[in-house]
Amino acid sequence: MKPQAIVNQILDGRPLHHVRSTATAFAPTNIALCKYWGKRDEFLNLPINSSLSITLPNKGTTTTLTFCDQSHDVIFLNQAPVDPASTFAKRLATFLDLFRTEKQFHFEVHTTSNIPIAAGLASSASGYAALILALDQLFEWHLSKKELSILARLGSGSAARSIEMGFTKWYAGIAADGMDSFAEQLPYQWAELRLGLALISEETKSISSRKAMQQTIETSPFYTLWPQKAAQDLPLLETAIAQKDFIQFGETVESNALAMHACMLTATPPICYFEPQTIALMHTIWRLRKKNIPIYFTEDAGPNLKLLFLAEQESLLRKEIPSLEILSPFED
Amino acid sequence: MKPQAIVNQILDGRPLHHVRSTATAFAPTNIALCKYWGKRDEFLNLPINSSLSITLPNKGTTTTLTFCDQSHDVIFLNQAPVDPASTFAKRLATFLDLFRTEKQFHFEVHTTSNIPIAAGLASSASGYAALILALDQLFEWHLSKKELSILARLGSGSAARSIEMGFTKWYAGIAADGMDSFAEQLPYQWAELRLGLALISEETKSISSRKAMQQTIETSPFYTLWPQKAAQDLPLLETAIAQKDFIQFGETVESNALAMHACMLTATPPICYFEPQTIALMHTIWRLRKKNIPIYFTEDAGPNLKLLFLAEQESLLRKEIPSLEILSPFED
Repeated sequence: MKPQAIVNQILDGRPLHHVRSTATAFAPTNIALCKYWGKRDEFLNLPINSSLSITLPNKGTTTTLTFCDQSHDVIFLNQAPVDPASTFAKRLATFLDLFRTEKQFHFEVHTTSNIPIAAGLASSASGYAALILALDQLFEWHLSKKELSILARLGSGSAARSIEMGFTKWYAGIAADGMDSFAEQLPYQWAELRLGLALISEETKSISSRKAMQQTIETSPFYTLWPQKAAQDLPLLETAIAQKDFIQFGETVESNALAMHACMLTATPPICYFEPQTIALMHTIWRLRKKNIPIYFTEDAGPNLKLLFLAEQESLLRKEIPSLEILSPFED
Repeated sequence: MKPQAIVNQILDGRPLHHVRSTATAFAPTNIALCKYWGKRDEFLNLPINSSLSITLPNKGTTTTLTFCDQSHDVIFLNQAPVDPASTFAKRLATFLDLFRTEKQFHFEVHTTSNIPIAAGLASSASGYAALILALDQLFEWHLSKKELSILARLGSGSAARSIEMGFTKWYAGIAADGMDSFAEQLPYQWAELRLGLALISEETKSISSRKAMQQTIETSPFYTLWPQKAAQDLPLLETAIAQKDFIQFGETVESNALAMHACMLTATPPICYFEPQTIALMHTIWRLRKKNIPIYFTEDAGPNLKLLFLAEQESLLRKEIPSLEILSPFED
């Protein structure tokens, strides 16, 4: 099935012409706690497994869309003009094409992000979520969160999880059109939960998560067990969150991330997002855990680690890892 | 089945009393190219999968055994006396007990190793192989290589592969008594093959390979696929060696090692033998490969990497990685 068919189905006759002349929206980034790794449909970004994430309230992307009379979209990323021939611009324009079947207009897109781009901090997730939110405002569609989640997913899979705040769960679904594959907020708060961003490198990743995912599925002998692993971890995580069982939560999050990276390491050629400092920090975390300090990590398609711990460990961790940026997902 | 029964079966009435008063033997260490990871019998060190290794002619352990009239074994490791209460001494004494059912005598054991102990360089492999070779001389048993391999295995699994030179293949076997689980030399030479030792740390590993193996089998969801992976890699490796197909050889060796480490990473708690410098060197190797320089690595239960390449790359690698100790397994 083509993305255009899904867009048409969701918009269901809603206007695709000027309502407002400009709109601005912010979408937060999200950190997967049970990872999305592998697609059941490449075109619709339908995942093989359901996933669960936490949204970072103040980290994300702000996008302003304005109609413009150029013959192509004009894109600015963090104030700098983006080459229309770049992969970034082309992917964005292809996505915007879904909302202008006749290419009757173009956009000036100003996108600013307070997270490093393409460094495994889910910048494309917040990017495509912000874009859909801005489009929804611009055209005054008043779509539901479920519909927004589905549309964001068409831009970047994990963007489905950046429409809602807090803990969000993205259902893999089984429908061929993916109308059952969207994220929704889980009814849990966890005020004491802290997330530490350990920025190891802001460099663009050596291999995109999109390509890494595909290479893993096609070549890793261990990938066959990944969907099972995710299916086991997800309910464990949900229970741990509901019961605020931090040890169960942390163990599951870390084990899920390591399983994903283990699959990547066994791809051909091997995919390794670990950098020397990533490993150094992992050993620090494991050393702290041996001293009964409950701190866990997760890692996405990039060298940076995201640390998970509770408020009571905050001062200790500031001392142990001074460079840590500590966020309070439910209090910020 | 108990190790003692196997020893009795193999010795088959051979003398266990003074023939010579002292004997010295050397055994080389071996580097597994298709790894041994997991036991089908803990007591007899019977492996779940067959493995294949290469012997390093001049790296290993020299052991001198002398009868002594002390009430316990007196052990020297690299000239230093070993505390009889240490794990090292106890394990050695327990092994020696197999060859003196009445404890009617004790040994002075002088063992020297030109490889770092317990740093993932298979020091226990050459250690127990040298011990068995010294015992064979001391008692003038004249055992066959197959019998020596089986006895060495009782001390440390991978010691089975340190009796023969060159490429050796250790059969997992299926017999409960393990009489079909021994290593033998493969009929291949590869003069151009080079092995580079990149010594990252000589520190004792944080978790012994024995314990790491057990923890992996008991807790890693990916371990179920390991025996299959090894069973696929072993014939690929043998063919690559027979045909001197270096690319197939290197790809298989590296992929096999990464699969083993991937299993460990997904154990609970995770086992990670990677150190920051391990990862840095892996990235260096992958960068060189991208420039079409055929160089691969393997890694055992320790942070050190063993690089594999051909003679024609030697000068380039000396430049790229100056600390590399380069060995020629078939020419040294």
